[in-house]
Amino acid sequence: MISEQYRSMLGGKSVIRELSEYATARGKEIGYDNVFDFSLGNPSVPVPQAFHDKIVELLRTRGPVELHGYSPSLGLPEFKEKIAASLNRRFGMRYAPEDIFPTSGAAGAIAHALRLVTAPGDEVLTVAPFFPEYHPYVDLTGARLRVVPADTTAFQIDMDAMERMLTPAVHAVLVNSPNNPSGAVYSEETLRRLAGLLAAKERAVGHEIWLISDEPYREIAFGGASVPYPSRFYPRTISCYSFSKSLSLPGERIGYLAVNPESGVSQTLVAMCGQISRGIGHNCPSSLMQLAVADCCEMTSDLSVYERNMNVLYAALTELGFEAVRPGGTFYLFPRALEEDAVAFCKKALRYDLVLVPSDSFGVPGHFRIAYCIDEGKVERSLDAFRRFVRAEY
Amino acid sequence: MISEQYRSMLGGKSVIRELSEYATARGKEIGYDNVFDFSLGNPSVPVPQAFHDKIVELLRTRGPVELHGYSPSLGLPEFKEKIAASLNRRFGMRYAPEDIFPTSGAAGAIAHALRLVTAPGDEVLTVAPFFPEYHPYVDLTGARLRVVPADTTAFQIDMDAMERMLTPAVHAVLVNSPNNPSGAVYSEETLRRLAGLLAAKERAVGHEIWLISDEPYREIAFGGASVPYPSRFYPRTISCYSFSKSLSLPGERIGYLAVNPESGVSQTLVAMCGQISRGIGHNCPSSLMQLAVADCCEMTSDLSVYERNMNVLYAALTELGFEAVRPGGTFYLFPRALEEDAVAFCKKALRYDLVLVPSDSFGVPGHFRIAYCIDEGKVERSLDAFRRFVRAEY
Repeated sequence: MISEQYRSMLGGKSVIRELSEYATARGKEIGYDNVFDFSLGNPSVPVPQAFHDKIVELLRTRGPVELHGYSPSLGLPEFKEKIAASLNRRFGMRYAPEDIFPTSGAAGAIAHALRLVTAPGDEVLTVAPFFPEYHPYVDLTGARLRVVPADTTAFQIDMDAMERMLTPAVHAVLVNSPNNPSGAVYSEETLRRLAGLLAAKERAVGHEIWLISDEPYREIAFGGASVPYPSRFYPRTISCYSFSKSLSLPGERIGYLAVNPESGVSQTLVAMCGQISRGIGHNCPSSLMQLAVADCCEMTSDLSVYERNMNVLYAALTELGFEAVRPGGTFYLFPRALEEDAVAFCKKALRYDLVLVPSDSFGVPGHFRIAYCIDEGKVERSLDAFRRFVRAEY
Repeated sequence: MISEQYRSMLGGKSVIRELSEYATARGKEIGYDNVFDFSLGNPSVPVPQAFHDKIVELLRTRGPVELHGYSPSLGLPEFKEKIAASLNRRFGMRYAPEDIFPTSGAAGAIAHALRLVTAPGDEVLTVAPFFPEYHPYVDLTGARLRVVPADTTAFQIDMDAMERMLTPAVHAVLVNSPNNPSGAVYSEETLRRLAGLLAAKERAVGHEIWLISDEPYREIAFGGASVPYPSRFYPRTISCYSFSKSLSLPGERIGYLAVNPESGVSQTLVAMCGQISRGIGHNCPSSLMQLAVADCCEMTSDLSVYERNMNVLYAALTELGFEAVRPGGTFYLFPRALEEDAVAFCKKALRYDLVLVPSDSFGVPGHFRIAYCIDEGKVERSLDAFRRFVRAEY
């Protein structure tokens, strides 16, 4: 018989995906250049040429049987070594290669991390606003996702609310900085307070609480700032990374998880990742991708367009009267809508061919997300549409 | 707290992996050329040059943002179209592209298929001898794997045993032809009888029974024979394929599942695959691999070495007194050991630097597996070791 668990998930379409499909269809009517499609978080800048050169070099210089051979079940040593060395150098960590596990992007890393440190029935906390895909990631492990209400003044963490919700049922806290959809970067102070709170709660409830840190936007930070690395603040941290945004490789499904060795169980957890992968028949990302990315792990695409787009949009929208927290990174802006009902607001925006995502599925009402990983010219041209929209409707 | 489910799986090392590690270590002592390592099922012949050429062409001709962009959650249309057309042409099927879902090799396909059509507590039947990884694939879904005893005379299916074990608890039957480890190819008659049995049992138990067909060795058939395609015989079949063996790409993790459209629910099941992938954060194999393989899906590596190796080993071993069913395909031979205890037999063989895998983990006692996906010269040189082994010990 067909699984009811998975069949029942069909039809529940993602709002983002629906809007993106609308934008594509509308583009066929009026030309996609005329649709201000801010729906999808898809990188708009190319991977560095060095990545392509590396692939060609691997194809030319390595024996094909070895190059395309099975990766060891815990990943290719070359990949693990280079990632560990890079994280150690950049963030003052002490990862061994054995603390690193290659995954299908950050999504794969989070899904593994949840299985490592929770059991069915456990609670996992996340902080609003949050990436809606956290729901299937958590739900399909049998754990339950609970959402700490947003600190809408700065999109840091409402620590009082977090403290109240850290009941004995909670075994993991899932955070995302720089944040999709708010663009906020957690400050060192936020991370220090969070770590203190988790450590105190661990003592109070008598079991470990793990921090799962989702970091695909780590390299997209504005104003020359660097993003504080959560694992530096809390030993029981599993960092989940993807090269989707930093190297513009979302379709290649390559990332990793890194378990803080100060937890004392990092290599056990990485070994367990091999068993989790086995259960789903995954067995590591593509060997060629592991090798190519290993060599490019400290490069990024030219990410500067995202900051320029943010500056243009932030200035124009605040001038138009929107309230917004200025993003510290990512390619998202998360202003307050001009009416309480964000869905109604975004629906009206479509009349001006502005495709904006209402905030409800991110766990916060009354806001909208702008994904400005698009061409700068289109961002400039969208400003007039925003002006017409606001003047006519509000 | 650390998951007990996955922690408890650690330490239970695969016999094959242990023997392979022994062979590598022994190679360091006496030179790997002198170790007759028949342990691992890793292809020994290179991928066709056309595959590398295709990758380079894709890198040169497609825009990198599109090329490395997110694959749709059910796979790239180009991949699905080419696979469907190829299967239809070769096997007289009527797949639509929407009946095809790209996976991380056959392992990923089987893991998805199991989640599609079973629920925790259900039973899944497989037929001895079977690939030992079926255990984690099934166990981690919460279903239970039960093993139909082997037909050791021909390594087809003991239909009486199968019939007895098809209780109402069974919701799926997992078969593998050409078979690892026996090398047997299920005949049309076997598949017809199996289909008849499943159809009759469906009526008797009042629910569907799905056939999950694991086919990574489909292209390695001997004597010019073609391998009967199980899905042609039974409408509720999910075919699980990998390019690991046919194109020698095991590390690239690329394959697919194909649901027979005559089941009436093929597109529902493929849509459900997207939800299953979401839960593990997988989201399709590498886009570059999907595109490169799509274009090469009717090519194979030069697989003829496997047949030459089989002929040499089969002739020499039967002359030495071994009983063996002549393989119809794969790169495995599965003779009866010269004593009841296959583990003891394989241990003695190590004295002659013959690395053979005892049959117990394949669900059959008293046999051993020879994986002859190795250099022809080494196969020739191993014959003397086999002779010395048999003369001295038996």
